[in-house]
Amino acid sequence: MNATATRIGILGRGQLARMLERAGQPLGQHFEFVDDPSARFMSGVEVVTFESENWSVRDVERAAAGVPVFPSTRALSIGQDRQYEKELFDRLGIATAEWSWISRGFELPDAVERVGVPSIVKTRRGGYDGRGQWTLRTLADIGRVAVELGERSAIVEQLVPFRRELSIVAARGADGAIVYYPLVENHHERGCLRITLAPARVDERIQSSARTMIRALLVELDYVGVLALELFEVAARDGTSTLCANEIAPRVHNSGHWTIEGSKTSQFENHLRAISGLPLGDTETLGPSAMLNLLSHLPELRAVLSVPGAHPHVYDKEPAPGRKLGHVTLRADTESELARRLDELSLRIDISLPEAVTSWIRSTSSG
Amino acid sequence: MNATATRIGILGRGQLARMLERAGQPLGQHFEFVDDPSARFMSGVEVVTFESENWSVRDVERAAAGVPVFPSTRALSIGQDRQYEKELFDRLGIATAEWSWISRGFELPDAVERVGVPSIVKTRRGGYDGRGQWTLRTLADIGRVAVELGERSAIVEQLVPFRRELSIVAARGADGAIVYYPLVENHHERGCLRITLAPARVDERIQSSARTMIRALLVELDYVGVLALELFEVAARDGTSTLCANEIAPRVHNSGHWTIEGSKTSQFENHLRAISGLPLGDTETLGPSAMLNLLSHLPELRAVLSVPGAHPHVYDKEPAPGRKLGHVTLRADTESELARRLDELSLRIDISLPEAVTSWIRSTSSG
Repeated sequence: MNATATRIGILGRGQLARMLERAGQPLGQHFEFVDDPSARFMSGVEVVTFESENWSVRDVERAAAGVPVFPSTRALSIGQDRQYEKELFDRLGIATAEWSWISRGFELPDAVERVGVPSIVKTRRGGYDGRGQWTLRTLADIGRVAVELGERSAIVEQLVPFRRELSIVAARGADGAIVYYPLVENHHERGCLRITLAPARVDERIQSSARTMIRALLVELDYVGVLALELFEVAARDGTSTLCANEIAPRVHNSGHWTIEGSKTSQFENHLRAISGLPLGDTETLGPSAMLNLLSHLPELRAVLSVPGAHPHVYDKEPAPGRKLGHVTLRADTESELARRLDELSLRIDISLPEAVTSWIRSTSSG
Repeated sequence: MNATATRIGILGRGQLARMLERAGQPLGQHFEFVDDPSARFMSGVEVVTFESENWSVRDVERAAAGVPVFPSTRALSIGQDRQYEKELFDRLGIATAEWSWISRGFELPDAVERVGVPSIVKTRRGGYDGRGQWTLRTLADIGRVAVELGERSAIVEQLVPFRRELSIVAARGADGAIVYYPLVENHHERGCLRITLAPARVDERIQSSARTMIRALLVELDYVGVLALELFEVAARDGTSTLCANEIAPRVHNSGHWTIEGSKTSQFENHLRAISGLPLGDTETLGPSAMLNLLSHLPELRAVLSVPGAHPHVYDKEPAPGRKLGHVTLRADTESELARRLDELSLRIDISLPEAVTSWIRSTSSG
């Protein structure tokens, strides 16, 4: 708000970059986008960030050309490498599923001997939204997956029978202050996030456990910006629930999009505040929200807007099968109203919701 | 959200145009701005709107080149002409202060004879934020003002001893549906809006009276888009309050900026929904808000953001005395919390608030 506003460089120009831009413009921030790994920022940017962890550290450093990068390239290098991620979880005492790593396909049998089946094989780098992943239902699957993996390194992890997939988003400022959004509940379809319910229907013990985990990560990494941690809620021996870390994303996260309308400060604004050295904003929620990803094709805008509390976000991308083309955040004053609105939205735009969500709607919407 | 998103042309590229753009981008809308009266829209815009009523009808029609204009040029021609405005209020039975019109300065004595003193003289067109206005305290002021007015036409209106300045913003869709934001309370400084408190501290009878007035205007004008109506709350003979219309603004309005964070749907989004033929959004408030205009110079962003619930908006304009350079919306869960936060904000950024606001803070913040 001083005469010289912060100039921010963003690697990438997808929907996350644009939502960051819209959050920063009211703060007087100016943005430059680079999505060519060989390009450099031109306009005197003062801080650089990225919208995806698929940038190599070398490309980020070249583009930034000495300008500070937040989150750090160390956080980036961990977030883009499943083995580093699991090793960090282990070092910090953050529970995970049993896991092992292999440097190429032919080592898979040894790893499975340690981890067991059913298990899941994930390439060490580069996979997302279900790509670069194979499920080993039985030992008979090993041969095929080992061949498909070829020379790629990977991790193998036990397939935990989880109750729910959860995630938590938090932001850490340059001064070390941390703010947490509540745990949310994620429902996937063919490996891709379909719907997020915020907050998750978990008790305070679980919320607190998630905050402890992500705080350990933020502090260990001397992290500046927004970090997302994906978790599984699994059954403990005593019948209660416990959390198991899956992976981190060192950036604003799809499961935090609901914060634009559903929180007092959005994840996008808090990321920008953090990397610009500004105080972080209040993360209290404004009632329950649901975020529905729009995949493959876009519904009629009119149909979405006819549902009370619906806030559509269109990404200006060409339709393609399975592609994220937008999202809708639904907000309501009560959980039962939210369930009814989500039911109405799914009917109006003809999207079938995951079974766990429809059963939640059935049990809640009459409340 | 269909493949071909609506393309919207905006006359003007000030802060209102940019806030419209940011509200429309998530809906997949694309914007073109024209601020040269001799220019035309180029990129196949489907609907044209304006951010100020200072565009001549002829220039709007030339720029639009046959593309529909919302609100209509009839609404525009009334909104930019104080005499047409008052005549419309009279025709619809909307109460105003006693008023008269003159076609040039030398007719002023006759008009004052009808209206009396104290009264206020306003040029028929072109004045805003206190410019083009003269107060007649006594009959001795007439000569000087008549000379300054010269060949300009004007209206003369009784200076009503108002309790409060209020305004209401409403939107009407292409289908005739109307949504209303609550009445808000405006406090000026040297003729320029300094602070808006939302909702206004008035009873439901007054709220309802304001809705009746603005509905009559919206229907009479077959209006499409957001309309603002400025009002005075004056003492009725029986000691209660009554409303007196001052003027309309056929556009999104400074006293509606709080809706970005303080309402379930902002005035900007509802304006765009209306002019694009989309269903209007919920105008329910999210707790009490205060909107503070930042005039002449900008405070430190860090100081603003250190106040909980503060949402700064910087307009990217060169500082100049009295110029609106940005605004801050403050939101809180209760009125007393809002009062405390406003007090804190005014201290941190060293802005002295109007006396009516500080006395409200004193009486409320201990609650």
